[in-house]
Amino acid sequence: MLDRTAARNVLDKVKAEGRQALTAPEGKVLCDVYGIKVPKEGVAGNAEEAAKLASGMGFPVVMKIVSPDILHKTEAGGVIVGVKSAEDAQAAYEKIIASAKSYKADANITGVQVQQMLTGGQEVIIGAVTDGSFGKLVAFGLGGVLVEVLKDVTFRLAPVTEEEALSMLDGIQAAEMLKGVRGGDPVDRAALADMIVRVSQLVNDYPEISELDLNPVFATKDGAIAADVRIVVDYNQPAPRPRPSQEDIVTAMNRIMKPKAVAVIGASAEDGKIGNSVMKNLINGGYKGEIYPIHPKADEILGYKAYRSVKDVPGTIDTAIFAIPAKFVAGALTECGEKGIPGAVLIPSGFAEAGAPELQEEIVKIGQKYNVRLMGPNIYGFYYTPANLCATFCTAYDVKGSAALSSQSGGIGMAIIGFSRSAKMGVSAIVGLGNKSDIDEDDLLAFFEQDDNTSIIAQHCEDLKDGRAFAEAAKRVSKKKPVVVLKAGRTSAGAKAASSHTGALAGNDKIYEDVLKQSGVIRARSLRQLLEFARGIPVLPTPKGENVVIITGAGGSGVLLSDSCVDNGLNLMAMPSDLDAAFRKFIPPFGAAGNPVDITGGEPPQTYKNTVKLGLEDERIHALILGYWHTIVTPPMVFAKLMVEVKEEMAAKGIEKPMVASLAGDVEVEEAAEYLYQHGIPAYAYSTELPVEVLGAKYKWARGAGLL
Amino acid sequence: MLDRTAARNVLDKVKAEGRQALTAPEGKVLCDVYGIKVPKEGVAGNAEEAAKLASGMGFPVVMKIVSPDILHKTEAGGVIVGVKSAEDAQAAYEKIIASAKSYKADANITGVQVQQMLTGGQEVIIGAVTDGSFGKLVAFGLGGVLVEVLKDVTFRLAPVTEEEALSMLDGIQAAEMLKGVRGGDPVDRAALADMIVRVSQLVNDYPEISELDLNPVFATKDGAIAADVRIVVDYNQPAPRPRPSQEDIVTAMNRIMKPKAVAVIGASAEDGKIGNSVMKNLINGGYKGEIYPIHPKADEILGYKAYRSVKDVPGTIDTAIFAIPAKFVAGALTECGEKGIPGAVLIPSGFAEAGAPELQEEIVKIGQKYNVRLMGPNIYGFYYTPANLCATFCTAYDVKGSAALSSQSGGIGMAIIGFSRSAKMGVSAIVGLGNKSDIDEDDLLAFFEQDDNTSIIAQHCEDLKDGRAFAEAAKRVSKKKPVVVLKAGRTSAGAKAASSHTGALAGNDKIYEDVLKQSGVIRARSLRQLLEFARGIPVLPTPKGENVVIITGAGGSGVLLSDSCVDNGLNLMAMPSDLDAAFRKFIPPFGAAGNPVDITGGEPPQTYKNTVKLGLEDERIHALILGYWHTIVTPPMVFAKLMVEVKEEMAAKGIEKPMVASLAGDVEVEEAAEYLYQHGIPAYAYSTELPVEVLGAKYKWARGAGLL
Repeated sequence: MLDRTAARNVLDKVKAEGRQALTAPEGKVLCDVYGIKVPKEGVAGNAEEAAKLASGMGFPVVMKIVSPDILHKTEAGGVIVGVKSAEDAQAAYEKIIASAKSYKADANITGVQVQQMLTGGQEVIIGAVTDGSFGKLVAFGLGGVLVEVLKDVTFRLAPVTEEEALSMLDGIQAAEMLKGVRGGDPVDRAALADMIVRVSQLVNDYPEISELDLNPVFATKDGAIAADVRIVVDYNQPAPRPRPSQEDIVTAMNRIMKPKAVAVIGASAEDGKIGNSVMKNLINGGYKGEIYPIHPKADEILGYKAYRSVKDVPGTIDTAIFAIPAKFVAGALTECGEKGIPGAVLIPSGFAEAGAPELQEEIVKIGQKYNVRLMGPNIYGFYYTPANLCATFCTAYDVKGSAALSSQSGGIGMAIIGFSRSAKMGVSAIVGLGNKSDIDEDDLLAFFEQDDNTSIIAQHCEDLKDGRAFAEAAKRVSKKKPVVVLKAGRTSAGAKAASSHTGALAGNDKIYEDVLKQSGVIRARSLRQLLEFARGIPVLPTPKGENVVIITGAGGSGVLLSDSCVDNGLNLMAMPSDLDAAFRKFIPPFGAAGNPVDITGGEPPQTYKNTVKLGLEDERIHALILGYWHTIVTPPMVFAKLMVEVKEEMAAKGIEKPMVASLAGDVEVEEAAEYLYQHGIPAYAYSTELPVEVLGAKYKWARGAGLL
Repeated sequence: MLDRTAARNVLDKVKAEGRQALTAPEGKVLCDVYGIKVPKEGVAGNAEEAAKLASGMGFPVVMKIVSPDILHKTEAGGVIVGVKSAEDAQAAYEKIIASAKSYKADANITGVQVQQMLTGGQEVIIGAVTDGSFGKLVAFGLGGVLVEVLKDVTFRLAPVTEEEALSMLDGIQAAEMLKGVRGGDPVDRAALADMIVRVSQLVNDYPEISELDLNPVFATKDGAIAADVRIVVDYNQPAPRPRPSQEDIVTAMNRIMKPKAVAVIGASAEDGKIGNSVMKNLINGGYKGEIYPIHPKADEILGYKAYRSVKDVPGTIDTAIFAIPAKFVAGALTECGEKGIPGAVLIPSGFAEAGAPELQEEIVKIGQKYNVRLMGPNIYGFYYTPANLCATFCTAYDVKGSAALSSQSGGIGMAIIGFSRSAKMGVSAIVGLGNKSDIDEDDLLAFFEQDDNTSIIAQHCEDLKDGRAFAEAAKRVSKKKPVVVLKAGRTSAGAKAASSHTGALAGNDKIYEDVLKQSGVIRARSLRQLLEFARGIPVLPTPKGENVVIITGAGGSGVLLSDSCVDNGLNLMAMPSDLDAAFRKFIPPFGAAGNPVDITGGEPPQTYKNTVKLGLEDERIHALILGYWHTIVTPPMVFAKLMVEVKEEMAAKGIEKPMVASLAGDVEVEEAAEYLYQHGIPAYAYSTELPVEVLGAKYKWARGAGLL
């Protein structure tokens, strides 16, 4: 257990004095409490003391002004490095005081810090920042000007485990530098990781620490010492966002997504009205629960008894779908609250997105007061296919499957529906989140985690209202089901004013990149990739190992497929000689050895069959990438049907391995690709990249979930 | 004019002595001849001389062993830096000699070099390497361990102009370092560029210089001095590849690609035979020239009079298409030579790709002897649609257009045909290059450059037999027509043994990356991208400026389209306030200001029309990206037809700007995208990336061709 009294005292004093930063000695106190190694040092009140202190810790030393009024010490002439004798230390003291006074005549000067001077080893930076969405993050990078230019830094949510801290050492581009280059010693990785862990605990324990820099930290083969510490504080941290418990989230979301009864507030018999489209989608979609149209005057709508208010409905209601103008939402929502309805699907726009944040704040308060979870506002609604539920005014969708998708934007939602229909992608749910006044991505994660109808979750988002809650949910859920995220607005992050190096390095997207990875999320780089991953990942069985083999009829495809493997982090198996010989038996003598297995272009169906069967049967191979070349000898559909046959023959024997295919040929390959996909082999015409990207995503998930 | 005698003498001496590297003083001679600044220095034969030399140039100095037998001076204890006095210089001399002798007792020691010691400024590396395909390349990077780890280096074909040399300073990731960071001075860019130019001339003038390192070069605000020079020589440079003149290439290629008469060697009346498919493709494709089937016995094939040999054909033949087994090719090719046929299309496989390089060498010799240009062997043939010519055994293709495509691999060729047919892409030619025994990418570039039926050239290649010739042709051609290249095998480059830093940094793909860019080539990153670029670039008019504006109905698409603009190097125009006001007149009050112009989701067709028209009319805007959101109010085809209408209305007024579109919606958007594309607006359903990639490629070309 740490004795935190000293740290608390320092921070209380800084607060009392209205300061935004700690002095170096104050920073050192916090380091000492948390076991963060710093150089020997002391503060001298006069030149003699400086000489004595320096002699005690051994030369060379660094001497620095200590003054709460001087933030930029170097600029003030307040730093002298490489002081080599007691005599020099005395002179340095006088010079520093004089410089500081001429820099700022009225500066309150505490004294001069004398510090053991560190040299050698690798200079690194360890720091921490506070992000509006993710909260405390710890950062690691190499020290020096070049790294500042290249912005080679990595982030993790604080606090981190030792394992996560170690992953940071490998998470920078220049990771090799830590392993010792040009005959240099490798750094003490455990010591660096330990320091990162301690920093992450420090900032986690004291929310008022908004930024922290250990810069530089000297990392040698024997340890790590932070030569300088800089701590910035902000006592006005926002209060943590109130969140329901996971149990409450799941209970409410289950009622909302799988309702026994829904009310349509603003139901209409008139064609073209949103409330009419919603009613028709519910009815024609085949929803089997109760449907209660709510209308101020009508007695019946599309054959269903209508009510004036949800409060007039005799039975329980799980989900209220709103199809009324924004200005009427608050009133109707209050009635939902009084009725005890757990969820409101707020289709109407006209809230924060339309310059009316006060309307949105009002409904959020009502939702909190009555414990009604709000989906939206400003959404298309949602689909939950296992319940035949189309709670939306958009076109119906009914191809059942296990992919759950969500989008922050309505346009992207429409693209999801169009793509799904076009690709015959089976989905469990499509959800619009819109303004995310309440229900957001982590609520959906909690629901889909326990939803047996869902095996993959793919989300489009522009921001995360509560990145910390999302990351925690994603980390847990992604161990069970793949979570794919398309984060839009990667490049919109404006330059943020920051008063520390780490702060300046914290480009918004880099934080997303690292935290999503830390949370086991597969990040889609484009809309199509989000959609293709949602479609392909659930189709593929989980690989049991890293050995990928390419079997191709077209040598040219083989080369491009190999490129794609490298791009997507896949490991092309080094072909064992016995296996190589076994493949060679099936292919012409001029077919290429190794991996890719190049069966050459003119081969009959049997050659594809023999080699693919061998690839599936041999236990050393864990995944196959097929490169098909359209010829008269092996036409596209003959190839496709044969591959499915082999796959099913092997599956009957209990052998299931991920297989993807790239089809080069005339237009008939499109039909063959479609057939292969529908039979469990993600396949693409005219592309050597897409099949490998999908396989790569499956691998990324399997690794993150600890299955490989 | 440089006096090259001294340089020649040094290199002759090194050759005579059978050495592979120059000594430092020898290197300095070459630097002096070429005006490459090096520190003051001299060679001392004894300790007193060393002291005298050092005093003359000023302290500190560096001292180094000079011995043809000691390549690794530091390892031999042969380097002492920071020598600060005459006394120290004497001691250093003795120590260096002693270390060298103990390192290699029988080393022939010339003396000890005394050199002015350089410090301060930015350390950079300037170097040169010899590449098997590209020849001499000059390299530039930052000095230091970190850069070696990050491999942050850039290459250009030597010799370079001053402008190209300057582009290298911006061509590294850490370019900012040269501009002065943390208040440091910027380097003297002109001096660095000048040194790069001189190095490039040096290696260009002496082919035997295989590798060169100036490392480090100290770059300050006042100049640049190379602290160390290392020159590796190889007197066994391969002879330059014999190349026909551009004029001869064009003359021959015009006859081959646009023949008045073709012979089919191995023509056959039997279904399923390659010689039968070729005949049918010629006849059914609508080729209007003479067709001469060649067959050992037949008198007539498919209604055409057959001949025993090309030599029996009465008239002139331009192109001989080979459809006979490999072993008969040499004989028939000789007859083609004797007949004076300028081109042979060698469909047969069974040559180098099948382990028979000697068969290939034989036909290459015959081709050279008789001046018959060879296409292939091991190819599908070629298509040239303006002549209705399908000189191939593959399926016919007849959609005329201006894209000329080629592939090294047959599989990729089939993918080109399938994609083209599926996307209704108009092509002028599709060419298979296969083993590239003779005709290669640069021959095609020369032909398509002057072919009025072609406006874009897209090539798939795995290697460039003569990268230098390709680069020269591409640099010239890309000024007139876009050249797109998919270089496969990016990642297959094995580690090459190299005896210089620059050599070790020269990853094969980085050279391709830089040289293709230097040559104005647009590099496709994937097969689909190659195909989409070939399809989309010719459809788009050339932009007249860099200002891109996004007009979108879906805010979510706007964010993703903005991301894509950054990814593709497009400049989102900062919206002038008067133009902003003009857009605002057409959109709802809650529509978003600036760029993207967010017209919001529920708007009628007129809003799309008004805003797009304004975007086309305002001269400050140079390109538009449209984000469509499928709604009942503005259905997909209504949007598509309206956009085409606006486009044509503006075109009638002489206003033509590139426009691309991203369509988010249900499956009907696919038809709308198709319609837009066919009417000059590249459009994609369910994708915010593809339209922007295509526009980005058009911009990349326009910039490279100096049109922007």
